[in-house]
Amino acid sequence: MVLIPAGISTPQIMIDVVQLEKNIDKMAHRVASQGLKLRPHAKTHKMPEVASRQLEAGAVGLTVATVGEALSFALQGVAKIFIAYPLWVDESQAQRIQELIKRAKLSIGVDSVQAVEQMARMLGAQASKIRLMIEIDSGHHRSGVSPRDALAIAESARDSGMRVQGVFTFPGHSYDPDGIDKAVNDEHKALAEATRFLREAGFSIKRISGGSSPTAALSDNSVLTEVRPGVYVFGDAQQFELGRIGFDEIALSVAATVVSRHEGNDQIPRRIVVDAGSKILGGDRPAWASGYGRILECPEARISALSEHHATVTWPENLELPAHGTQLQVIPNHVCQAVNLVDSVLAVNADGSSEQWDVAARGLNF
Amino acid sequence: MVLIPAGISTPQIMIDVVQLEKNIDKMAHRVASQGLKLRPHAKTHKMPEVASRQLEAGAVGLTVATVGEALSFALQGVAKIFIAYPLWVDESQAQRIQELIKRAKLSIGVDSVQAVEQMARMLGAQASKIRLMIEIDSGHHRSGVSPRDALAIAESARDSGMRVQGVFTFPGHSYDPDGIDKAVNDEHKALAEATRFLREAGFSIKRISGGSSPTAALSDNSVLTEVRPGVYVFGDAQQFELGRIGFDEIALSVAATVVSRHEGNDQIPRRIVVDAGSKILGGDRPAWASGYGRILECPEARISALSEHHATVTWPENLELPAHGTQLQVIPNHVCQAVNLVDSVLAVNADGSSEQWDVAARGLNF
Repeated sequence: MVLIPAGISTPQIMIDVVQLEKNIDKMAHRVASQGLKLRPHAKTHKMPEVASRQLEAGAVGLTVATVGEALSFALQGVAKIFIAYPLWVDESQAQRIQELIKRAKLSIGVDSVQAVEQMARMLGAQASKIRLMIEIDSGHHRSGVSPRDALAIAESARDSGMRVQGVFTFPGHSYDPDGIDKAVNDEHKALAEATRFLREAGFSIKRISGGSSPTAALSDNSVLTEVRPGVYVFGDAQQFELGRIGFDEIALSVAATVVSRHEGNDQIPRRIVVDAGSKILGGDRPAWASGYGRILECPEARISALSEHHATVTWPENLELPAHGTQLQVIPNHVCQAVNLVDSVLAVNADGSSEQWDVAARGLNF
Repeated sequence: MVLIPAGISTPQIMIDVVQLEKNIDKMAHRVASQGLKLRPHAKTHKMPEVASRQLEAGAVGLTVATVGEALSFALQGVAKIFIAYPLWVDESQAQRIQELIKRAKLSIGVDSVQAVEQMARMLGAQASKIRLMIEIDSGHHRSGVSPRDALAIAESARDSGMRVQGVFTFPGHSYDPDGIDKAVNDEHKALAEATRFLREAGFSIKRISGGSSPTAALSDNSVLTEVRPGVYVFGDAQQFELGRIGFDEIALSVAATVVSRHEGNDQIPRRIVVDAGSKILGGDRPAWASGYGRILECPEARISALSEHHATVTWPENLELPAHGTQLQVIPNHVCQAVNLVDSVLAVNADGSSEQWDVAARGLNF
């Protein structure tokens, strides 16, 4: 991790550029060695500076969650974009999708016959240029259909003059310390089944897309053709507590200052408060997490409560409380939320120099 | 609540201007009738359009959480600003505080001798223009000192040539369905004790500041001189589930679209997915909450899971699932988080016309 540059105001998100590039290269090599393509999810970073590094390292394109994110990256020249989301295309979105089609090879998620028909209606003749990816529910039970139900969607696409390019899933139940192996099995089984049903019905399935940051390393090219991890570029406290990465692999932290410090007594807990709250860390706190993030300088400390501008930190009894004004690095639980709260981040280079990077696609919710 | 204007893209935050103004007037009258001053917390809205309505309705000034928020409102002409946060004033903040002092009467929170000394060092002769407010811990155990420990801070301020104007607390433990009465009692007791200690030692205590949105209506002018509620302007699902407001008093919702719809079976839950996730609702979910927000059109529905762009909604068994493309209004759990995720909101007037309001102080974390 970086040293906090002198004189910076807190709280502020910092990126260790050296570690970021290591993370990008490591995933690129690992995925290539598994015989898979890498189509990283850019919702994590939303930054041109990170996207360009991913593409240079061999990513075949980017994955995004919204039309706005897709347009942001397409306008920066990204040539292949997958909106991995079951869009309901209304008129204003249809106009923006027409713009996207001019600039990039576009694939879009779909999980219902109704959404296919709506897309065909709204996009008219241009609908044939969309590569549809049918979303499969592999056990997370969010969006997505069962493998068997993929067939009706593919048939509807064919009837509407649209192209089905493949299937995808998000094994969200991999975000559980005991769930990773099961999630990988579920993901591979569901995608293999859906592919078989569709191929038996005569559909050409070219892309079979899976993978989250926890599961990407376990993906198998006997089923999948590509993976879409996002968080791996930075890492976060969730990935650490899931056992997928070490502290030293985390490339993003929030510089924070000790603003309040209390030795405590029988009735009042011993604690410090730092000025990084949920408005810069995000509020995610899975039931299995140790708290609302981690303190890089003190892995034993626990962020036991989080307000908008306060993190309340329980400090180990055997260690002295840091002095008022001490700057610490807080690792967010879920880095995608943290980055989406700021308009720019401080990128710190190996020589200690730093620069602001724009979070260009921040807040593009539609 | 408003009707969703035709043709808008989702997810999008909408404000019902009529209800907003009702909420502002109601709190202004209630607080005045209790013999208290109202210094509303602007971290909730961060918008000039809302601040100006609060000040017109009689608020004596604004409360904010950061120097950046204070500057944003001072540059819009707000004359009295309270940064209700125990700032650690470094050099860059000191420069901005000098700017603030030129533009507004400024009070700042403090909860340690060290922070007083730091402020005096950093601000030099200008330090005497700051009105210090000592933060008291009334049971939330975040920042703040015990009533007895306030005295050393006041003495340090006097020795540094700084002015103590009063005491304040945030009874954060009021955010519990069974905790409101206790939190009000704790708040009043702690502030009364701190005031007594300080007055007995010869300090003139002019401001005694308490109150959150849940407790403001229960505040007592025999102890307090002012309250600082924030959320009341919009209301949110937390305030509703705490029993403080009705659905019809909520002035802010997120327009969202049904993008995925599943009847379910023995193994797969019956649900819809709407396109408002944690990147527009915020991720707050207290243990006592029914879920990650509420659906205005169906109070019995439960938002059982939240991803960045998906809210998974369990729909009542006896009601038909809404069709794909249906637009619904989602009420965030914690409205301060939702507003801080967008650069502008759609303000809808009584006649159905609408306009964009800037969230001018969004993301100003320092």
